[in-house]
Amino acid sequence: MSTPSPSIASVLVVGTGLIGTSVGLALRERGLTVKLADQDAGAVRVACELGAGEEWRPGEGRVDLAVIAVPPQFVAEWLLDLQKTEAARFYTDVASVKALPIAQAVQLGCDMTSYVAGHPLAGRERSGPAAARADLFLGRPWAYCPGPDAAPEAVRAVLSLIELCGGNAVQVDPSGHDEAVALVSHAPHVAAAAVAARLADASDTALGLSGPGVRDVTRVAGGDPDLWTVILSGNARAVANILESVAADLAEAAAALRAVSVEDGTAIGRVTELLRRGNAGQSRIPGKHGGPPRAYAVVQVLVGDRPGELARLFQVAKDAGVNIEDVRLEHAPGLPLGAADLSVQPEAAEVLAEALRAHGWHVP
Amino acid sequence: MSTPSPSIASVLVVGTGLIGTSVGLALRERGLTVKLADQDAGAVRVACELGAGEEWRPGEGRVDLAVIAVPPQFVAEWLLDLQKTEAARFYTDVASVKALPIAQAVQLGCDMTSYVAGHPLAGRERSGPAAARADLFLGRPWAYCPGPDAAPEAVRAVLSLIELCGGNAVQVDPSGHDEAVALVSHAPHVAAAAVAARLADASDTALGLSGPGVRDVTRVAGGDPDLWTVILSGNARAVANILESVAADLAEAAAALRAVSVEDGTAIGRVTELLRRGNAGQSRIPGKHGGPPRAYAVVQVLVGDRPGELARLFQVAKDAGVNIEDVRLEHAPGLPLGAADLSVQPEAAEVLAEALRAHGWHVP
Repeated sequence: MSTPSPSIASVLVVGTGLIGTSVGLALRERGLTVKLADQDAGAVRVACELGAGEEWRPGEGRVDLAVIAVPPQFVAEWLLDLQKTEAARFYTDVASVKALPIAQAVQLGCDMTSYVAGHPLAGRERSGPAAARADLFLGRPWAYCPGPDAAPEAVRAVLSLIELCGGNAVQVDPSGHDEAVALVSHAPHVAAAAVAARLADASDTALGLSGPGVRDVTRVAGGDPDLWTVILSGNARAVANILESVAADLAEAAAALRAVSVEDGTAIGRVTELLRRGNAGQSRIPGKHGGPPRAYAVVQVLVGDRPGELARLFQVAKDAGVNIEDVRLEHAPGLPLGAADLSVQPEAAEVLAEALRAHGWHVP
Repeated sequence: MSTPSPSIASVLVVGTGLIGTSVGLALRERGLTVKLADQDAGAVRVACELGAGEEWRPGEGRVDLAVIAVPPQFVAEWLLDLQKTEAARFYTDVASVKALPIAQAVQLGCDMTSYVAGHPLAGRERSGPAAARADLFLGRPWAYCPGPDAAPEAVRAVLSLIELCGGNAVQVDPSGHDEAVALVSHAPHVAAAAVAARLADASDTALGLSGPGVRDVTRVAGGDPDLWTVILSGNARAVANILESVAADLAEAAAALRAVSVEDGTAIGRVTELLRRGNAGQSRIPGKHGGPPRAYAVVQVLVGDRPGELARLFQVAKDAGVNIEDVRLEHAPGLPLGAADLSVQPEAAEVLAEALRAHGWHVP
């Protein structure tokens, strides 16, 4: 990792939820002074006990940077209050939408030279300070939106924050940001919920036929409904635009399928077309290390459900000089066996397969 | 694994695609005689070279069981032809829908005493004989639908097939099957495609903000559009019913979000309600080993992108006597580091975390 920029040494985190507490943990690891504030005194205590920083006492002296980690609709008010008391030299936030808090800050008459809005793309299914992790932002995109009046020092302070947290700084304009996260996060979340909702009243027999596909599609639907309601309402128009398109595509696919069932016609071509567009879109999602999806070769191997089984397997890979880029265990419901998909560089696939076979592994 | 039932010793597989070839591979591993047939001579050659069996010569003698592994709309014709030549004592198929081929078989006057329809729930993103695996069915549900006229010996033959392939036999009626797979496989596939389709024309900046959530939601959208068109058109009405509901929920969510953006009203409650139903549905999907989702504890640890890193990690777990139930690598785009989520029994979590820390691992 690169050397941290020394432009900030002390930070105030306002709001000790998942993101705020994780920021505190990451900065404490890098030796910064971190002050913590939250309207919920219990949340501050938990964050302090986790080692994310010390409780902030208003008026105890100006910090370099204040990180406002509260829901989007409260960012501007906090910014104004903190600026009035000169709590920090510079200010940022971590809210999941950007146009709304920036517009409100301008409207309230906040100082826009010392404020640079930000958003780390790093959520989890769990929330609250107890779910925080120092590495939450490691290698994740962290959007920042410097406004036309932002001072270069303010931008530098936010870039230091992102670097110290291990994030990957991505400059975007506020409305571009909001449209992007609607597309790659907010709308997919609602779609996953809508698919999962159909399972709520399904029979056990139907659910017993579930495979890995439906598990993947619906995993994010396990997120906190109240938290996601706040996120979605802060980006309502952009999410609505996408959901309308998705709903229209699905309604059209349904109509095409109905036509097939009565007349065996050519309407099904519209379904194929949607599936092809899905192929095209899916292939554009960047993979590991931020680049386009790498074409790893996948070596499959059967693993038993016993202690040490995976240790043996990775030891064989290590001894063969093969680095495993990714591993995915396919569960085998009902049996103490599963298939592990090991992603490796294409040229290493045969080496690994041979090494595993030589050590008695079953490589189909 | 339990002892295989000896009720079948020879099998004819008609259609050497992914499923048919995988059946051949699984049965050859268990020592059965396997004959292979396909209209595409090249596909049969590939399957034979993979060790899935030998090419079938019509008229060379009756096998115990014929497995018809062709698209749904061709199952009944094949069944009739095979029965006319007495190619097998019993018959089954592996098509992804069941009502259509059964109705067609009755209509064509097939012998329904020797035929028991089946469907292994075991697809992959890839297709064709080269993607086949002997373990494709291991621990996966395998639905079978004995009709009212099915002979007990025919049912026993199909149960033997499922057991020999390592599948988990689930008896369902044909229409119940079709509704179930529409719910847990076909409709989620189309929904994933519709979400992924929105990404096809997105900017690189937007895609650069992608996280693990959208990757999971859209993964199945990478499947073969032509193959999935055939699957969907064979279960058109059941899939259409679900897609209409999903589309209606998404359209309603979009309308609620639009209302929020103009009037800041209470319409957002409808979105929360959908997210709650999503929670409820998602939690009902069975997890590993076929039971309800187990509450494993997750231990997170940072891993470097170097050969042997995971081997060391699993060795520490093994030495601590901890079995890792599941592992998930969270990619860290742009950095040579990632977080591994290790699922373990709740009582083993602290043991593992301590052991990893004692060996110098970073456990946040």
